[in-house]
Amino acid sequence: MADTDADRNRVFRLAERPTGTPDEDVFDLSEEPVPEPGPGEALVRTLYLSVDPYMRGRMRAGESYAEAWDVGDPLRARVVGEVVESNGAGFAEGDLVTGNLQWADYATAPGPELSAIDPDLAPISTYLGVLGMPGNTAYFGVQEVTRPKAGETFVVTGAAGAVGSTAGQIAKLNGARVVGFTGSDEKVEFVEEELGFDAGINYKTTDDYRAALDEAAPDGVDAYFDNVGGEITDAVFTRLNVDARVGVCGQISLYNATEVPTGPRKLMGLIESRATVEGFLISDFSERFDQSVPQLGEWVATGELQYRETVTEGLENAPDAFLGLFEGENIGKQLVKVADYEA
Amino acid sequence: MADTDADRNRVFRLAERPTGTPDEDVFDLSEEPVPEPGPGEALVRTLYLSVDPYMRGRMRAGESYAEAWDVGDPLRARVVGEVVESNGAGFAEGDLVTGNLQWADYATAPGPELSAIDPDLAPISTYLGVLGMPGNTAYFGVQEVTRPKAGETFVVTGAAGAVGSTAGQIAKLNGARVVGFTGSDEKVEFVEEELGFDAGINYKTTDDYRAALDEAAPDGVDAYFDNVGGEITDAVFTRLNVDARVGVCGQISLYNATEVPTGPRKLMGLIESRATVEGFLISDFSERFDQSVPQLGEWVATGELQYRETVTEGLENAPDAFLGLFEGENIGKQLVKVADYEA
Repeated sequence: MADTDADRNRVFRLAERPTGTPDEDVFDLSEEPVPEPGPGEALVRTLYLSVDPYMRGRMRAGESYAEAWDVGDPLRARVVGEVVESNGAGFAEGDLVTGNLQWADYATAPGPELSAIDPDLAPISTYLGVLGMPGNTAYFGVQEVTRPKAGETFVVTGAAGAVGSTAGQIAKLNGARVVGFTGSDEKVEFVEEELGFDAGINYKTTDDYRAALDEAAPDGVDAYFDNVGGEITDAVFTRLNVDARVGVCGQISLYNATEVPTGPRKLMGLIESRATVEGFLISDFSERFDQSVPQLGEWVATGELQYRETVTEGLENAPDAFLGLFEGENIGKQLVKVADYEA
Repeated sequence: MADTDADRNRVFRLAERPTGTPDEDVFDLSEEPVPEPGPGEALVRTLYLSVDPYMRGRMRAGESYAEAWDVGDPLRARVVGEVVESNGAGFAEGDLVTGNLQWADYATAPGPELSAIDPDLAPISTYLGVLGMPGNTAYFGVQEVTRPKAGETFVVTGAAGAVGSTAGQIAKLNGARVVGFTGSDEKVEFVEEELGFDAGINYKTTDDYRAALDEAAPDGVDAYFDNVGGEITDAVFTRLNVDARVGVCGQISLYNATEVPTGPRKLMGLIESRATVEGFLISDFSERFDQSVPQLGEWVATGELQYRETVTEGLENAPDAFLGLFEGENIGKQLVKVADYEA
């Protein structure tokens, strides 16, 4: 791609904190010199970068589960890139790595903050998706938090997204009945036909979520993996079985709220169901990725775990790719391809 | 007491289902013949009966965690009584028992539904309080659900009530800092001076629950035992520490609501705190009372566990005692004394 010549480095910085739904004004694209790696650092050329809903929280001042970005700071993202120069970072030129880098053509990082990836095992983009944070989030959210067993019913929101699509398939591998809420008929077809979910529900064309659940999950809900929150979650909570497990992974429907969102109180219902509701962050499981990544890789290799990627071309289009997450434009993992990789 | 001669049996029945806050019209007091115990049954004379907030749920048609009473049915309650006649029930005349009986002077029950109690171990009324359901609810809600450890901060609502007063003391025995929300200055003094809580907060005279928590629980909240719900709970949720545990035992502030109560959505905050919220019912722990009751009894005997009872005299005043629960009139366990016990 022509935009990645070594003399210029395009960097997205936070121009202003958004109120409500963010738009293009939040992003400031500047051209800057390519940085020099300091001692122990490597310079990495971005090949793919990941845009994720949780980044909305980092644009906020103060409280979020991810550290806030300051206005003027480079935006950060999980990246797959190629080492261009290593200043004692423990990598060779041409090595492929992942790390928390920037919305930029190039960035430097200390060696220990980069991890080598193997392009022969799987396509390099998957290290941002099914083998990366989203895949691991799905893995631990299913196997450790919501724990669906054979014969139980598992419900997931954001079912066609990077996390939800993987979570539903893992629940299916566990032997559960799997129901996914998603936002278009195309996505319903994707989760039912390609991923093997038992039922998909298009929440944009469904008036009565409870009735839809009664049809799709006639035995109630034993495990609920929530990426979305809001009214769908209100409905699912009314259908929780005794000893149900709810894993709260994300609440994308609320991220752009300008006031504290309100809804029906849910705690009284938990007494009846004796359900457990647990929030989780994938970072709490990072020391166990040596267990999850090989398993995910094996399922991908055998075809038991399908994945889809939506790839936006060009760093300059990263804001669109990010903003599209809140419109549900992606199926599977939303990536930005910044430069071609030639093995 | 003159009202308990053997020829008459006063029985409270459900006259109508209440809407909102119940009043006297809900209760119908009738005089009926003393029932005859059938084969395998005992006739029990009520000495004390327990009124409890959860009974409000049983007055409702349909959903509650306790089975609904039908209009015209005798109201049921946990009772301490004396066996008057045993028709092959496995008890002797004069035996003291507890069981789920009626708001009545007399009731019959099959032998297996009655449990013998020992008046030499503890006052008979405590088998409805600190050694009964409320005490066991506190025990398992603390030791199994909210699990406060030494150095952690434990918050309880309904702190001067039968469950809350016991829960806070058990948390204190675990070495936690204990903060209780309660509804009068007298109750604040009770939990601080008699029960040894670190701080009591009078929610009726406190405008800003969050500020009150910041003062009383400056290190945040690690374990929350909720009997009340509503706005106090909203505030506590904003102060949960990482990996906090919330046990939902009751939601008395919502029991009389006529519409679905709404409030700030809480699930997003759980991602940040990775807190676990769990509803529980004491009946799920009933097979382990042989572990909890001796422990509670030992703590009572050594004085490590204090208890208070509020005793209303006379079966005819049971409705007042019940309705008073929603006004916070009781300190400790609210009982109705129906007849004198002469050992």
